[in-house]
Amino acid sequence: MFKGLSAFPLTPLKEERIDEHAFIALINRSLEAKVDSIGVLGSTGSYMYLSREERRRVIELSVREARDTPVMASISELRLRDVLALAEDAQQAGVRAVLLAPVSYQPLREEEVFSLYEEVSRHVSVPICVYDNPRTTRFTFSDELHGRIAALPHVQSIKIPGVSDDYIEAKERISRLRSVVPGKFALGISGDDCAATGLNAGCDVWYSVLGGLFPRICLELTRHAQAGRADEAVRVSAQLAPIWSLFNRYGSMRTAAAIAIRQGWMSAPGLPLPLAPVPASDMEQIADCLDALA
Amino acid sequence: MFKGLSAFPLTPLKEERIDEHAFIALINRSLEAKVDSIGVLGSTGSYMYLSREERRRVIELSVREARDTPVMASISELRLRDVLALAEDAQQAGVRAVLLAPVSYQPLREEEVFSLYEEVSRHVSVPICVYDNPRTTRFTFSDELHGRIAALPHVQSIKIPGVSDDYIEAKERISRLRSVVPGKFALGISGDDCAATGLNAGCDVWYSVLGGLFPRICLELTRHAQAGRADEAVRVSAQLAPIWSLFNRYGSMRTAAAIAIRQGWMSAPGLPLPLAPVPASDMEQIADCLDALA
Repeated sequence: MFKGLSAFPLTPLKEERIDEHAFIALINRSLEAKVDSIGVLGSTGSYMYLSREERRRVIELSVREARDTPVMASISELRLRDVLALAEDAQQAGVRAVLLAPVSYQPLREEEVFSLYEEVSRHVSVPICVYDNPRTTRFTFSDELHGRIAALPHVQSIKIPGVSDDYIEAKERISRLRSVVPGKFALGISGDDCAATGLNAGCDVWYSVLGGLFPRICLELTRHAQAGRADEAVRVSAQLAPIWSLFNRYGSMRTAAAIAIRQGWMSAPGLPLPLAPVPASDMEQIADCLDALA
Repeated sequence: MFKGLSAFPLTPLKEERIDEHAFIALINRSLEAKVDSIGVLGSTGSYMYLSREERRRVIELSVREARDTPVMASISELRLRDVLALAEDAQQAGVRAVLLAPVSYQPLREEEVFSLYEEVSRHVSVPICVYDNPRTTRFTFSDELHGRIAALPHVQSIKIPGVSDDYIEAKERISRLRSVVPGKFALGISGDDCAATGLNAGCDVWYSVLGGLFPRICLELTRHAQAGRADEAVRVSAQLAPIWSLFNRYGSMRTAAAIAIRQGWMSAPGLPLPLAPVPASDMEQIADCLDALA
């Protein structure tokens, strides 16, 4: 499942409960566009803010809707005990892969992170994607640690944070990572503004926030890059620059929420309080861009 | 309750469950030494790693043991919904104050943090202590925000992070904070290595990790500072320098855990996995210091 476009939808909330109707509609937007996979309960999907029951429900709904399209779900939690319980839930509900970030309250040490992945890799039977997101986990992987974890059973992908927008630097970064992971291993780009460069530089998959909202244009970008049309992929990404600018200012989750609200796909505020979507006043700067997409 | 020495005990775990016997014994060490208050479920008390039921149990046990000594407990969670539920639990169990940090997965924005405190201040009936800990929350309060929050009903204290070890700079920092909070308001120092300087510079209370392990020496330091014997407070703190050095390297929670294990007060590893105590090999450098304390 670790190739092409993986769409990471929001988990819409309404009065602090999961808005199942809105969630299913979002999932189906991506499925109709024929994304390669769905990544529920990513950072954009509010996984850390949901209870175990809520997380199980989100997975059940998405697996049911997705049919043959593979579904990945995050099993990250602060405590190993809870990660193992979530892994069990996710597998029982039919995920084809699990996404695991070293989330922290007490900033984690390298050996603690390794022990987390080692323990989880002993307990699961589906592929594990390592979620490398220093912004939310406050943990920075060394390449050496990536190599040790990638050698563990079941570990088959890394969701990497944004790369340089300079193609040569991005290429060097991906090559360096390739040199520490096994031969058949999927590197996936996140940070949507870096997707074109990341794919052009050799990433196998785009773990995409915008793919959970506007899957068609994200697929267009992805297919260009996969076919070696690097310039075309960059051209598509450039059309979305106003959106990337809001992503960088407010974070992609707050921006995605404001887009979904503006498009009528979710009720405001839609996010788990105290998180708040981008204020409507700042959405004006992407109005033309959104109208062109819709 | 916001004065003098507030002891912040570990929450010992045994096979991933709360070791109630060890927890009660730790609490009683502090109570016998006559600390001014107990702060359960602080960062050292693993609050973010415990379930709602576990947190309720910790509060019930400590309130029962503490009798007239006031107990404060953290009600922090990622989601406002959960914070309010924890506040309700804590108040029902008899806490005399609640401690609230703007914990985050998605780094929080200033208005989100204000809305969190505003909402909680509307719902509680006991004093709120603002927990300012950028290391674990990744949120840095501006002084202006501290002022806005301090003006909310029930907000009566801030647990501030470490101050400069330069007395003049620390004094300036405390004066600046005093200028934005109401007249009768308690500033509390955390970062145990800064306690002497913080108290000497005008803090009202020491929110203390070591006070949950070795309350007597922490009381000695506190009483010196309270009586204006600044040099004596600094002298006591200097005796503990080897411990502060490990606090700074591994974090106070991992060090406190290793101390409790070494002293036989808790079984290894005692912390919620994947967190691990300071390795035994690095504990040798504080062996003399601990032997002198015990």
